[in-house]
Amino acid sequence: MVHKIIKLAVTDVRFPTSLEQHGSDAMHRDPDYSAAYVVISTDVGLRGYGLTFTVGRGTEIVVCAVEALAGLVVGKSLEEIISDFRGFYRLLTSDGQMRWIGPEKGVIHLATAAVLNAVWDLWARAEGKVGCGADPKQIVSCIDFRYITDALTEQEALDILMKAQEGKQQREDQMLKEGYPAYTTSCAWMGYSDQQLKQLCTDALNNGWTKFKMKVGADLEDDIRRCRLIRQMIGPDNTLMIDANQRWDVGEAIAWVSRLAEFRPLWIEEPTSPDDILGHAAISKALAPLGIRVATGEQCHNRVMFKQFLQASALQFVQIDSCRLGSVNENLAVLLMAHKFQVPVCPHAGGVGLCELVQHLILFDYICVSADLNNRMCEYVDHLHEHFTSPAVIRNACYMPPKDPGYSSEMLESSVHTHQYPEGDVWKTLLNK
Amino acid sequence: MVHKIIKLAVTDVRFPTSLEQHGSDAMHRDPDYSAAYVVISTDVGLRGYGLTFTVGRGTEIVVCAVEALAGLVVGKSLEEIISDFRGFYRLLTSDGQMRWIGPEKGVIHLATAAVLNAVWDLWARAEGKVGCGADPKQIVSCIDFRYITDALTEQEALDILMKAQEGKQQREDQMLKEGYPAYTTSCAWMGYSDQQLKQLCTDALNNGWTKFKMKVGADLEDDIRRCRLIRQMIGPDNTLMIDANQRWDVGEAIAWVSRLAEFRPLWIEEPTSPDDILGHAAISKALAPLGIRVATGEQCHNRVMFKQFLQASALQFVQIDSCRLGSVNENLAVLLMAHKFQVPVCPHAGGVGLCELVQHLILFDYICVSADLNNRMCEYVDHLHEHFTSPAVIRNACYMPPKDPGYSSEMLESSVHTHQYPEGDVWKTLLNK
Repeated sequence: MVHKIIKLAVTDVRFPTSLEQHGSDAMHRDPDYSAAYVVISTDVGLRGYGLTFTVGRGTEIVVCAVEALAGLVVGKSLEEIISDFRGFYRLLTSDGQMRWIGPEKGVIHLATAAVLNAVWDLWARAEGKVGCGADPKQIVSCIDFRYITDALTEQEALDILMKAQEGKQQREDQMLKEGYPAYTTSCAWMGYSDQQLKQLCTDALNNGWTKFKMKVGADLEDDIRRCRLIRQMIGPDNTLMIDANQRWDVGEAIAWVSRLAEFRPLWIEEPTSPDDILGHAAISKALAPLGIRVATGEQCHNRVMFKQFLQASALQFVQIDSCRLGSVNENLAVLLMAHKFQVPVCPHAGGVGLCELVQHLILFDYICVSADLNNRMCEYVDHLHEHFTSPAVIRNACYMPPKDPGYSSEMLESSVHTHQYPEGDVWKTLLNK
Repeated sequence: MVHKIIKLAVTDVRFPTSLEQHGSDAMHRDPDYSAAYVVISTDVGLRGYGLTFTVGRGTEIVVCAVEALAGLVVGKSLEEIISDFRGFYRLLTSDGQMRWIGPEKGVIHLATAAVLNAVWDLWARAEGKVGCGADPKQIVSCIDFRYITDALTEQEALDILMKAQEGKQQREDQMLKEGYPAYTTSCAWMGYSDQQLKQLCTDALNNGWTKFKMKVGADLEDDIRRCRLIRQMIGPDNTLMIDANQRWDVGEAIAWVSRLAEFRPLWIEEPTSPDDILGHAAISKALAPLGIRVATGEQCHNRVMFKQFLQASALQFVQIDSCRLGSVNENLAVLLMAHKFQVPVCPHAGGVGLCELVQHLILFDYICVSADLNNRMCEYVDHLHEHFTSPAVIRNACYMPPKDPGYSSEMLESSVHTHQYPEGDVWKTLLNK
């Protein structure tokens, strides 16, 4: 059966999360979790849903970029796309005119992610699958190896995937039974009071969480007080991670984090500019003696940057993002490079829809690439799942594998309708206040 | 006198350059040189003009981004902005919601450049100046040192500028008399025939040009033939540079350029991904024994990337861009870092308006920063200057310093009107064909 794509629609969907400081950090004080939400329709009635995550203002720019890409998608069939998915990826990312405003970064790459996420969703729905089904050859055929062959060749990628065929079924069964380990960021956003933080920790501990992330970087004394508080709450054996959201310069990062070493954070996340590979390498080197590692990636904009972070030993945890990189295609490249460099992947999630999407990627990583759970966990934030038709399911602080065919990226029609910006009811009410 | 900004207008202006293959290279086969063109108006009638360069499709996305930034500009006075220009720069680049879709890269950063270029133009017009007037303290107050203090501190920047006060007047006089050395890219675009290339070289030699750049990277045998042809045309003593516009992976770049070594190119420009700092470092190291150096920068998206290119010895020529970096503010940071690392700056120009704008930056570099012309030259492309009210002036293959107050960024109203996309007459005719 051929699925011809006859329409691509995109919507600016925003949730007023800033009203309650959900998601607030040292650099994003008032995020309104948002998405450029894409629906592609085929001539046989099947649809694919995709999105990229944004934090409010500027979503309309990404929507505009999706509209600019639509012409490259509409009129193609799904079968045509997947028969040369690498070529289709490059068609979108290397358009001779549009690549100038990227290339493969910022708005145009976020838009590419939204569009391609919808294509992957369509593909999975058309095949009635949830992921992991594709064979190694088909998987590598989706990856654009341009600019990364000095770190990973197509043959090396294929070898990794072939090797991981062993034990695949057991790992799949294990995941269906136990789920994939997660950590929570919901307890300690920057804008939360100490009281709120304590209550949320108590609740999370009762729900079986053992790994906690808190936001730091605005004020050192505050950070010390809050780190002490959360370490007291969670005890010495649970895991604490800290996240500065790019707040510091290199020297400042080293000095600041050294002051927090007594609270034994596993990692410092985004200590400085997401573009600063050599800076992260310097920070990694300076903090290693303190037992603190460096994590980054949620704003690492493409596989070329991740390649260098790995080559330079600039990170010890790879935080892929399902919507910042060019969809599954580019995430596959990064998962395979991370495996080659033996650096664990701990995906970025939260926002809106990121948990839903990235769970597929990390399950794929375990089942088909790394075969390893050591030092690995996936972020979880308990917000906005109710807007999805197949929300992520957490049991005992683990992601339970999704059951519905697709990429879990479909939002409820009513949610989209109400949160459309600025004409949805939620925004009409807020903007008229 | 206070100049309050009361309006910001932005226009999508496109020139159908692809019709004649002007500007074609290995990655951009059919560029239509374009601009998101910004006009800011003040309550006292003075205007500032700014732009960012694009190559056709996607310009509408940058226009959308400029509109999103407008709210941060309109209502402010010029005096308020320049009294804390660093703060204003950060207001635009670090908006808590919009930074997510950058930060400081791609569409949103191109838009920032267009807006800030207009502010600099307004400032120069308000003071009746052409540049170089500002004192060292005021200059450093325009620079956001965030993320670069490990390479250049504010004090170091100030010291460089203070030191260059010596001999400033002589260099200014020299520039007014002789101009700043330029090279031409107009002879050897990828899409030009050998016959066209020969004719253009002959013309250029007759006009006094001694430095020539040609496009390579699509086909090795073609490149060898064309390199041989151009070297024959220009003779052994003139300078040849080659430009691959990101066509290769790292190993491929080294192998391909080695084959062209016999034609003695001074540099290979953009051999690989503009994001690949470590790749450029490897290429630099491999080509050094052949006497070929590496140039890059036109798509280097911010000061953090340039910092690393310098730290890693990944380039031997810094090619700043007046519209890719965050206007004069960020270019100042890069000029100062380049000086500290003792790497010559040879700006990217061409496109539409880039020559007009960047001549100010390179004159500033010589007069106020580097005090050195050794191994330095500014790109020149002989297209589309007729659309500007103060077009760049070339005499004896040198840029003659601009004489009109401002940033030379004002386009003719009639040009803007006719080339507006898609409603201008030029496009109405082309699109109805």
